[in-house]
Amino acid sequence: MNKKYLIPLSLGAAMLPTLALAQDAAAPSFDEIGPYLMTTLLFLVGGFLVFWMAAGFAMLEAGLVRSKNVTTQLTKNIALFSLASIMYWLVGFNLMYPGDFNGYFAFNFVPTVLEPVGLTAADASLDYASVASDFFFQLMFVAATASIVSGALAERIKLWPFLVFVLVLTGFLYPISGSWQWGGGWLSEMGFSDFAGSTIVHSVGGWAALAGALILGPRLGKYKDGRVNPMPGSNLALATLGTFILWLGWFGFNGGSQLAAGTVGDITDIGRIFANTNMAAASGSVAALILTQLLYKKVDLTMVLNGALAGLVSITAEPLAPSLFGALWIGAIGGVIVVFAVPFLDKLKIDDVVGAIPVHLFAGIWGTIAVVFYNGDASLMVQLTGIAAYGVFTFVAAGILWFILKATVGIRVSEEAEIMGLDTSELGMEAYPEFTRG
Amino acid sequence: MNKKYLIPLSLGAAMLPTLALAQDAAAPSFDEIGPYLMTTLLFLVGGFLVFWMAAGFAMLEAGLVRSKNVTTQLTKNIALFSLASIMYWLVGFNLMYPGDFNGYFAFNFVPTVLEPVGLTAADASLDYASVASDFFFQLMFVAATASIVSGALAERIKLWPFLVFVLVLTGFLYPISGSWQWGGGWLSEMGFSDFAGSTIVHSVGGWAALAGALILGPRLGKYKDGRVNPMPGSNLALATLGTFILWLGWFGFNGGSQLAAGTVGDITDIGRIFANTNMAAASGSVAALILTQLLYKKVDLTMVLNGALAGLVSITAEPLAPSLFGALWIGAIGGVIVVFAVPFLDKLKIDDVVGAIPVHLFAGIWGTIAVVFYNGDASLMVQLTGIAAYGVFTFVAAGILWFILKATVGIRVSEEAEIMGLDTSELGMEAYPEFTRG
Amino acid sequence: MNKKYLIPLSLGAAMLPTLALAQDAAAPSFDEIGPYLMTTLLFLVGGFLVFWMAAGFAMLEAGLVRSKNVTTQLTKNIALFSLASIMYWLVGFNLMYPGDFNGYFAFNFVPTVLEPVGLTAADASLDYASVASDFFFQLMFVAATASIVSGALAERIKLWPFLVFVLVLTGFLYPISGSWQWGGGWLSEMGFSDFAGSTIVHSVGGWAALAGALILGPRLGKYKDGRVNPMPGSNLALATLGTFILWLGWFGFNGGSQLAAGTVGDITDIGRIFANTNMAAASGSVAALILTQLLYKKVDLTMVLNGALAGLVSITAEPLAPSLFGALWIGAIGGVIVVFAVPFLDKLKIDDVVGAIPVHLFAGIWGTIAVVFYNGDASLMVQLTGIAAYGVFTFVAAGILWFILKATVGIRVSEEAEIMGLDTSELGMEAYPEFTRG
Repeated sequence: MNKKYLIPLSLGAAMLPTLALAQDAAAPSFDEIGPYLMTTLLFLVGGFLVFWMAAGFAMLEAGLVRSKNVTTQLTKNIALFSLASIMYWLVGFNLMYPGDFNGYFAFNFVPTVLEPVGLTAADASLDYASVASDFFFQLMFVAATASIVSGALAERIKLWPFLVFVLVLTGFLYPISGSWQWGGGWLSEMGFSDFAGSTIVHSVGGWAALAGALILGPRLGKYKDGRVNPMPGSNLALATLGTFILWLGWFGFNGGSQLAAGTVGDITDIGRIFANTNMAAASGSVAALILTQLLYKKVDLTMVLNGALAGLVSITAEPLAPSLFGALWIGAIGGVIVVFAVPFLDKLKIDDVVGAIPVHLFAGIWGTIAVVFYNGDASLMVQLTGIAAYGVFTFVAAGILWFILKATVGIRVSEEAEIMGLDTSELGMEAYPEFTRG
Repeated sequence: MNKKYLIPLSLGAAMLPTLALAQDAAAPSFDEIGPYLMTTLLFLVGGFLVFWMAAGFAMLEAGLVRSKNVTTQLTKNIALFSLASIMYWLVGFNLMYPGDFNGYFAFNFVPTVLEPVGLTAADASLDYASVASDFFFQLMFVAATASIVSGALAERIKLWPFLVFVLVLTGFLYPISGSWQWGGGWLSEMGFSDFAGSTIVHSVGGWAALAGALILGPRLGKYKDGRVNPMPGSNLALATLGTFILWLGWFGFNGGSQLAAGTVGDITDIGRIFANTNMAAASGSVAALILTQLLYKKVDLTMVLNGALAGLVSITAEPLAPSLFGALWIGAIGGVIVVFAVPFLDKLKIDDVVGAIPVHLFAGIWGTIAVVFYNGDASLMVQLTGIAAYGVFTFVAAGILWFILKATVGIRVSEEAEIMGLDTSELGMEAYPEFTRG
Repeated sequence: MNKKYLIPLSLGAAMLPTLALAQDAAAPSFDEIGPYLMTTLLFLVGGFLVFWMAAGFAMLEAGLVRSKNVTTQLTKNIALFSLASIMYWLVGFNLMYPGDFNGYFAFNFVPTVLEPVGLTAADASLDYASVASDFFFQLMFVAATASIVSGALAERIKLWPFLVFVLVLTGFLYPISGSWQWGGGWLSEMGFSDFAGSTIVHSVGGWAALAGALILGPRLGKYKDGRVNPMPGSNLALATLGTFILWLGWFGFNGGSQLAAGTVGDITDIGRIFANTNMAAASGSVAALILTQLLYKKVDLTMVLNGALAGLVSITAEPLAPSLFGALWIGAIGGVIVVFAVPFLDKLKIDDVVGAIPVHLFAGIWGTIAVVFYNGDASLMVQLTGIAAYGVFTFVAAGILWFILKATVGIRVSEEAEIMGLDTSELGMEAYPEFTRG
């Protein structure tokens, strides 16, 4: 639309009578189109909030790696988001939402096509929202899944093999398993419940990360002589910023997953979801705050940050049904899980640089189980079935993919490159070239 | 809501006829529910913008403290937001908005309860918005108040006593005094006017900070031999980012305080508020820019940042009534106040690390007075009464609380800890472990 | 509006019957006011997203300059935004949208006046949006133009002459040339097409930057003995954050430029625009990723960041008409342009510190040409005419202005000041005072 036709604002209301009349004449009533407008708006606002989580992951991860790997981590994050955007258009969206299909796998390899420009109300899905807004919103979720992997495998994985993994994860693995539930497949038929994706998004990212961490091995010197060698993040201000960004984005993540905003019930539910999402993040953070003080006599900021994120993941499977008190304790348990899971992984010598597996996999499983406490329609057996199905599929498929990549192009940088840092060895560009290392 | 029922978008508009019919049949018209939808949406969008201010305070403060105290400052900020979220749910919201009460103090210690899932239009407050969205929005304001305190007292206060103060401030002090005006109490009856909280939010934070700063005392070496020893912030890029975040969040802070968005008058007013809010920030910043050049022959970035914030605080008591020119000069005076108040506080040896008292208290008072210039209903005497009432109550109550904390657990770290930096001494975790200090 | 009247939420829905009745009686129907509400909301949300781009430019530029110039770069960015806000109010908005005028220049030097508080539906432009929201939205675009200039001329330009340039650019140059198209002037009459401003905003910024870069000359030591001396940015994490912020803000930039959100066609179009905008950014980023790997055997993060931005600029002239595949290749060519244009400018010894000219000018020209591929109404000749008209006017006018500034007050700091860094020499305040330079 050309701006000029709309300029003479300052001239008052009476201008452009023809246009206004034409509009009035044929226009469908707001009772017909209002819900469509509101739900489309929900997806646009929710979508840009979840987009913003890509920046959150980038900052969190850039803050938690050592300065010699920051440029590489930033590059991975912007590249994975971009590749996910393309793959999800090329095949992912239609694999995941194929319409009628066998419930397990849709042979539907077609790129996403948007509605024509200037869609009329008669041609629109007035009971839902615009395809473009829905695609935009769903796309942001697959990018989140890929970001989870990049954090766990930081500081030793090669750039390009990681990006190849992202292509397959975002184009195929996530959409296929996603179709089981959100595409109306077999788990959805069975009654599995995962509102915004504790399992479908977060644990899937976590399983893919776990498979990668096992096959890739820990960073050099991380576990030495039976001791865990701490490798502190280079910039906790960035890590905190990343956590706040993710927290903000999560209102879109969970709130947008209401998938409707045009009735009193829907918009009120979105308010509940916002309030519950915030509460779970707050209680996850406070749980980690108190627990690290009790256990270590010192508050651990990275645990507090991950506690907030774990609270968010925990409430994601059911952010609507719980009371605020429910959100509080569900989120708090998420925070507790993180505080115990981080040293537990270290004991197993699984090196997860940013704590992605505790936050997204463990808290994701917890959140999916916790659905049964407030959602009367959910069954524990079905929830466990869903958790296991996503776990087995993603872990095995991701594992095979990591193995193939390892056997062919190799996934790990050389020892020299790892010691020197990936920024110098892989990219030849330091993130903070003027700041001396201590 | 399960996403699967909504998937077959790509199948076109004609699907799900039963559902659509069912909806059409019983649905109340948009004329009835439209304002509720729009106002609830206002609170959700306004709320996430004000949430974002928590990140803004965190970045501003992390950027303005020295690097040895950054982790502690970040920890305080995320912890105070989380605790405020819990306390405001537990008692704060219902203390502040008790419905019918004595006008001074509501004996109403009950946690917030949200509406049931899937609220029907018949059960909704159609003339307002969803409780959950309102709670979500109001909650973000109390967190802002607590953030103000954390900045002023940085670099020498102990973590846990500070957090105990936050619990009381956010659960009791802020809600009680808030009820006088926004809860429909005695100041509201008297005709006090404070649209979005120059006094109720900002000066309350400022008074609590001032009481704390007096009782805590200045940082070691700040005032020595009659001279003020500058202690420059460690990261002005973060401080600038924090300022931009706060500026962005302020559109939600002031715009959302219109408390309605479903009529032409309301949405148009919100536009006025956005434009005025931006103008006051801009003029506050420009005033500090020009004034520091004139006074010191050099522009001072931290003053420019605080000038923008002071402009924002100044317009917060009345962002609607002024013309754009009104917003310009009201904001500009805010910027001037900051430039003079910062050295004035130093002269009094009141050590406010980030300039929170000039920005939030002094400009907050100014903004509350400035209401009388454009809002014909406001009386200077009543405005001064309100300013004084909030000042006396908060300063005394906060002072008593700081004294009790000082006398019992102590509020200040040891001299050694302060010199070493709180990150090492209190938390054992540096924010930038690899960057050598100059 | 006073909050107290709206508090007793928790008392249930039946309260305030009088008020509700009064509202029902006189209220115009949503069929009449709904589009106005939605479009005004679009401008408010779009506007705060584009506001956020000011922070994006600040972070991008602060990250790409050397640490000795970071404070100055931050100061320029917050100051230019503030001054643009004031100038656009004082004269810019009414120069740019004068209503009926000669098509070239409006003798309309009046400040912007907003609608009165509490506008009634009868007095509103129901076929558009509130003036205040429109002003707020348009204002953010002029600030973006000024930000482009600040990046290119970093590290050697004096603060105040730069700010004087900003005053003229945002108050006069941008509004005058903007009126040719968006004000309904001669280019608009001719059929020029530039949806959200590849030319009107981005190339204008680029031309002003190019004129400045030529007159100002390169940084000391940048081109020496026939070689290009790389001067790496001090903080790539900030630069990446800035890019993500700009990407987020661009949804408002392009989506809001639909200028209407109250019909099925408009909101659906906005969804298309969001999806296309994201795709172009993604493909621009991937193009630079692959191309730098192929050309230099190493991925270059700053090129990837600028590739994403160039993709965004490329799609800005026509984000609606293209398919997702169209957005992909249009954006990708933007990314390719950047990778070749950066060394090309260096060959010409034009020193553009952040790559603003390749991103905003070259990709802006490309995007304006690319309109013809998907928009049947656009003519290549007219597009080239528009590109040339904006180029000649801005380059000449900006050039004259830079010359006058150079000849009078001088625009370049002394050699000593440049070597020492502008933070110390011009402002006396370092951005990272504790981090030693390597």
